[in-house]
Amino acid sequence: MSEQISSSEPSPVAVLKDALHNFEKVALSFSGAEDVVLIDMASHLVEKLSVFSLDTGRLHPETLRFIDRVRQHYATSLELTLDLLVPEPVALEKLVREKGLFSFYEDGHEECCHIRKVAPLRRHLTGFDAWITGQRRDQSPSRTQVPQRQIDAGFSTARRQLVKFNPLAAWKSADVWDYIRDNDVPYNELHDRGFISIGCEPCTRAVRPNEHERAGRWWWEESTHLECGIHLMNLDQEPDQTNDSGG
Amino acid sequence: MSEQISSSEPSPVAVLKDALHNFEKVALSFSGAEDVVLIDMASHLVEKLSVFSLDTGRLHPETLRFIDRVRQHYATSLELTLDLLVPEPVALEKLVREKGLFSFYEDGHEECCHIRKVAPLRRHLTGFDAWITGQRRDQSPSRTQVPQRQIDAGFSTARRQLVKFNPLAAWKSADVWDYIRDNDVPYNELHDRGFISIGCEPCTRAVRPNEHERAGRWWWEESTHLECGIHLMNLDQEPDQTNDSGG
Amino acid sequence: MSEQISSSEPSPVAVLKDALHNFEKVALSFSGAEDVVLIDMASHLVEKLSVFSLDTGRLHPETLRFIDRVRQHYATSLELTLDLLVPEPVALEKLVREKGLFSFYEDGHEECCHIRKVAPLRRHLTGFDAWITGQRRDQSPSRTQVPQRQIDAGFSTARRQLVKFNPLAAWKSADVWDYIRDNDVPYNELHDRGFISIGCEPCTRAVRPNEHERAGRWWWEESTHLECGIHLMNLDQEPDQTNDSGG
Amino acid sequence: MSEQISSSEPSPVAVLKDALHNFEKVALSFSGAEDVVLIDMASHLVEKLSVFSLDTGRLHPETLRFIDRVRQHYATSLELTLDLLVPEPVALEKLVREKGLFSFYEDGHEECCHIRKVAPLRRHLTGFDAWITGQRRDQSPSRTQVPQRQIDAGFSTARRQLVKFNPLAAWKSADVWDYIRDNDVPYNELHDRGFISIGCEPCTRAVRPNEHERAGRWWWEESTHLECGIHLMNLDQEPDQTNDSGG
Repeated sequence: MSEQISSSEPSPVAVLKDALHNFEKVALSFSGAEDVVLIDMASHLVEKLSVFSLDTGRLHPETLRFIDRVRQHYATSLELTLDLLVPEPVALEKLVREKGLFSFYEDGHEECCHIRKVAPLRRHLTGFDAWITGQRRDQSPSRTQVPQRQIDAGFSTARRQLVKFNPLAAWKSADVWDYIRDNDVPYNELHDRGFISIGCEPCTRAVRPNEHERAGRWWWEESTHLECGIHLMNLDQEPDQTNDSGG
Repeated sequence: MSEQISSSEPSPVAVLKDALHNFEKVALSFSGAEDVVLIDMASHLVEKLSVFSLDTGRLHPETLRFIDRVRQHYATSLELTLDLLVPEPVALEKLVREKGLFSFYEDGHEECCHIRKVAPLRRHLTGFDAWITGQRRDQSPSRTQVPQRQIDAGFSTARRQLVKFNPLAAWKSADVWDYIRDNDVPYNELHDRGFISIGCEPCTRAVRPNEHERAGRWWWEESTHLECGIHLMNLDQEPDQTNDSGG
Repeated sequence: MSEQISSSEPSPVAVLKDALHNFEKVALSFSGAEDVVLIDMASHLVEKLSVFSLDTGRLHPETLRFIDRVRQHYATSLELTLDLLVPEPVALEKLVREKGLFSFYEDGHEECCHIRKVAPLRRHLTGFDAWITGQRRDQSPSRTQVPQRQIDAGFSTARRQLVKFNPLAAWKSADVWDYIRDNDVPYNELHDRGFISIGCEPCTRAVRPNEHERAGRWWWEESTHLECGIHLMNLDQEPDQTNDSGG
Repeated sequence: MSEQISSSEPSPVAVLKDALHNFEKVALSFSGAEDVVLIDMASHLVEKLSVFSLDTGRLHPETLRFIDRVRQHYATSLELTLDLLVPEPVALEKLVREKGLFSFYEDGHEECCHIRKVAPLRRHLTGFDAWITGQRRDQSPSRTQVPQRQIDAGFSTARRQLVKFNPLAAWKSADVWDYIRDNDVPYNELHDRGFISIGCEPCTRAVRPNEHERAGRWWWEESTHLECGIHLMNLDQEPDQTNDSGG
């Protein structure tokens, strides 16, 4: 592990190339600032890109405006498919009828995240062989071991192995924001109001000076559990690493 | 028509009683300040109430907090079922993939309203014989003829006639707010920031002093078309009126 | 009195002409939406205009931006002198040292208003023979008898009689906003957020639908005392009316 | 110089004791988060404390609420005199009449800062032999050489030498915020909205993730000139250092 997280790791662009060139069915997961950096890098590598975002129904209006701004920004340089995945009504309506709209403050975010994020993601990923995320190791205690490439133990199925790429795994927050500034990459306007890591509106808050970015997420729960279930394997297990060149 | 809109009309409570006592399968539609007035009145008339709200995925976070506050507020006095109806994923994801999240600013609000409001409403109303709304005649040019009770030509089916009750048809805006103040009825915090009529976030704005309340809705379209499709019959036709006592 | 408040009263422009043409030393008091209507009317009547505003040190940042926008807006059509009057330091520093910055919530707004508004106004008005205000009769219970023209019993001195003009006395709120809309008159952006009558930041709030505009001012005090002292004669006494043509 | 900025420097409390115990006429300058840390430390060292703040007339309403909250918070543990220094009217009214309220965006912040900050400060400091500030070396390029104690070349007069103490000179931003968190020290609510260094409202903005705190101040000017004039000697000259024990 320690070798892989050394400075001799491939660059983000190299990892992104690996994903985009070696997999036919590959999608980029988009929600935060890191992901637009990846879209921006990809716009110089490929002509078509499949991006998806989880529209949980609880995002900030500012985040929805940001998502659409990204769509428009790259529409000229890239054939961009942007899928917004929404929750399945039966499960969602049942949860809300029984527990209301804010049950996560009482019994934890997993149930809501499962319906609004994990299930739509699982449904969508069945159409792909690989996906790309913006995870970074310095984002949270649960992400310190994130490799640049791994078999996605959580979303692979008996029929199909899914590979997960994290091209920015070795980047620091400052690297992301330097890239955004240097390349005029669109970013969520909430970042101008003290927000760093941005998820659903009721489960995100601005952080104070010198607070860690993940302090703004699910702040009423234990800091070791701050994953929404998309990257749940970060919590459960040693990440499986795949060193074969995929495809 | 003119007689019906006279001061000799039944009171809101009388109309509400008619709906709640004469129909077994009756639901109250909830989104705005008027609707909570009706819930409040109903809490003195019945022990169980079926309420629904259209959770379009684009409501203000403040509106979602308001909806949940209403649920909690009446939980002690009433067996309140609060259904939040969400859009069907296939149609919604198709619209957004093809046109993005803000197509209504370009080609009108009907398409988006249909998917996020009308279709979920139609699906839900198939389970009911009557529904209750907070429409008022002074809300907009398209509502000046709203009767207290009507056959819902838009949502009745060949198999089932649906009756629609508008108990507050004859009330003025001031009547609503007097009731809210006098009875400590919960209201949307956006009303404290210049919002009067409140719908989806991208399609609602605060109004200036002396602007009409509907000036804050779909302001980029013709003022005679400012209905979302829920009350579309207001636009299309003379309302059918039913004077029989229902059931 | 009743005759004067009839529809046979002179128009706002006629009253404004009376003030601007018959008095050499005349100043227009500017804080709210009404006052910009008067500046706009005056820009068609005169080439030079002396306007002042009370910069209490507690105005909303939005109000300061609005004041400067008005200055720039009329700079091309009018030689506009815009004086911002600030409080005298010794009295202000003494008040704040002894009672802090929010004493008005405890013992009333008069003491603070006196230092931040009345004293700077009195100092400034000594240089004038007449002043013009935007008072309207329907603004508050204390203003129902406001005449279009009066001797200012509060600010006249033994040496100099001061005449006060209220050209919009007979206008309703809707008249003001119709004029603003029809003439593209700049207005305070806070009006787009539910504010109607706007004073100092800690003493002003947005109002709810159908609340009276003055409900947003000094709301913790008796509604019959809601004057800041600038128009204190509205509270104390029958207004003296002067029907001579001034000068 | 280099020795003084080593880890062998006295602690903040030691420097504060030096100031508070060796000078009879000593005042603490208060505007930001650092300064409340110093007030908190002082509350354990002395029974009386003279604090002042520059009320420029352009502070955020949130900052004024913060200042008053600090006054109330320490009122029980300390005999706290809190002077809010306001600008002198003649100079201020002249500037605003001639250039409006936002001239600093055109010709720099010095003129406005001089009237609203430096002049009131100079007037106030004539009554003191020493003052205490919250300056830190890592705050900005102009502060990297700030000593813990210095003769204030800018505000000393021929008649009286003024000593300036910067007890937190060696602290990092994280030290300040750790202290605030650990000791429940009141802080400006704007820090919860992305603001780090906070000055006047038109001259302060929130910063984005990973931006330096001073990026939020006078951002339209050269970064080497970002001092308001209070600490202007940081720009002009090598700081004079005094190593005698004062008094």
